[in-house]
Amino acid sequence: MDMFSAKAKSCIDACLDCYATCLGMASNHCLVVGGPHVEQEHFRLMLACAEVCRTHAHLMILGSPHARHLAPECAEIATRCAESCASVGDMEACVAACRACAASCSDMG
Amino acid sequence: MDMFSAKAKSCIDACLDCYATCLGMASNHCLVVGGPHVEQEHFRLMLACAEVCRTHAHLMILGSPHARHLAPECAEIATRCAESCASVGDMEACVAACRACAASCSDMG
Amino acid sequence: MDMFSAKAKSCIDACLDCYATCLGMASNHCLVVGGPHVEQEHFRLMLACAEVCRTHAHLMILGSPHARHLAPECAEIATRCAESCASVGDMEACVAACRACAASCSDMG
Amino acid sequence: MDMFSAKAKSCIDACLDCYATCLGMASNHCLVVGGPHVEQEHFRLMLACAEVCRTHAHLMILGSPHARHLAPECAEIATRCAESCASVGDMEACVAACRACAASCSDMG
Repeated sequence: MDMFSAKAKSCIDACLDCYATCLGMASNHCLVVGGPHVEQEHFRLMLACAEVCRTHAHLMILGSPHARHLAPECAEIATRCAESCASVGDMEACVAACRACAASCSDMG
Repeated sequence: MDMFSAKAKSCIDACLDCYATCLGMASNHCLVVGGPHVEQEHFRLMLACAEVCRTHAHLMILGSPHARHLAPECAEIATRCAESCASVGDMEACVAACRACAASCSDMG
Repeated sequence: MDMFSAKAKSCIDACLDCYATCLGMASNHCLVVGGPHVEQEHFRLMLACAEVCRTHAHLMILGSPHARHLAPECAEIATRCAESCASVGDMEACVAACRACAASCSDMG
Repeated sequence: MDMFSAKAKSCIDACLDCYATCLGMASNHCLVVGGPHVEQEHFRLMLACAEVCRTHAHLMILGSPHARHLAPECAEIATRCAESCASVGDMEACVAACRACAASCSDMG
């Protein structure tokens, strides 16, 4: 993907990694462990975070100037999701992916 | 959307309705009620069904000849999701949307 | 979909209609007519608008409080897409769907 | 993403790379170069291929048993897209990403 700047490429990768980690842990970890892991506010936030990251990546891949408008919201929801995962516990991979995504998106906005 | 045949338009609508009903009930009903509603196999099937319906609609909207290849799998997963929802119970709207989608997709394959 | 308020249901429908109209006209009309219809800025805006509408609908369907954060950006990109379609011409259905979506999203923000 | 087998992880990566390469080259290369690059059959295939790859990755990330049903269609559309890109020319990155994706998906079906 030489068509992207190094910075954009890095943010696309961070967003797709956050998307895959949130969705994968929700489906393969939270639904298995249960309890606070499937509490509505937490689980819904993971699904919403995955979707916003996926779409922010999509707009950066398109090269759309509107990608910049989604960057702050992507940083915000990833930060909220990292906090929720840290609070639920046993979600280190998701906390790390969300924080890396938030940092990268904050740099793009 | 005059660009679609009546049959394609009807299947797009059935797929988008199934997508919204499965995703909406998973997030706003299953996560609230808990118990068998958030059992992994059931909940994951609802998310997977929502995604396949969304994408089958996307390919029909594109007018892609590959939409036809997804139709049988979309009918299959919607049928499985209807069965799972009927078995869990208290999911009538989702059973109905999945069955309507499966019937419409079977007609497109 | 009785799980949504009338206002949310109406905005979900407007966003999904805008998504399908933008994507469908891009693929089935712009790619056939060519010329200014496939100029990069216009065509990319149609694809980006379709994606933002699809995702705003997704977050409303999830019942996520973050849907509200996407509403102003969805209204903005739909307004820009309506302007681009009006300028290119022969895109009345897309102009109408984008304007209806923008009005509905402005009411949700 | 330790939650996936090495084989699944490799196929998720191949599908997401094919998605990003097809969508990115369609938007940032084909729309700029024009001519056969924006011919309807070719361009629509790139968009449809991107979407099928994205969704096949999504089902593998969910850990859904239905991912296996999409694998042959994902291999098929990526193969068709590679052929179309090779025929149009000056699309080497897309040909390579599509072929790698098709090979990986063929191994999953």
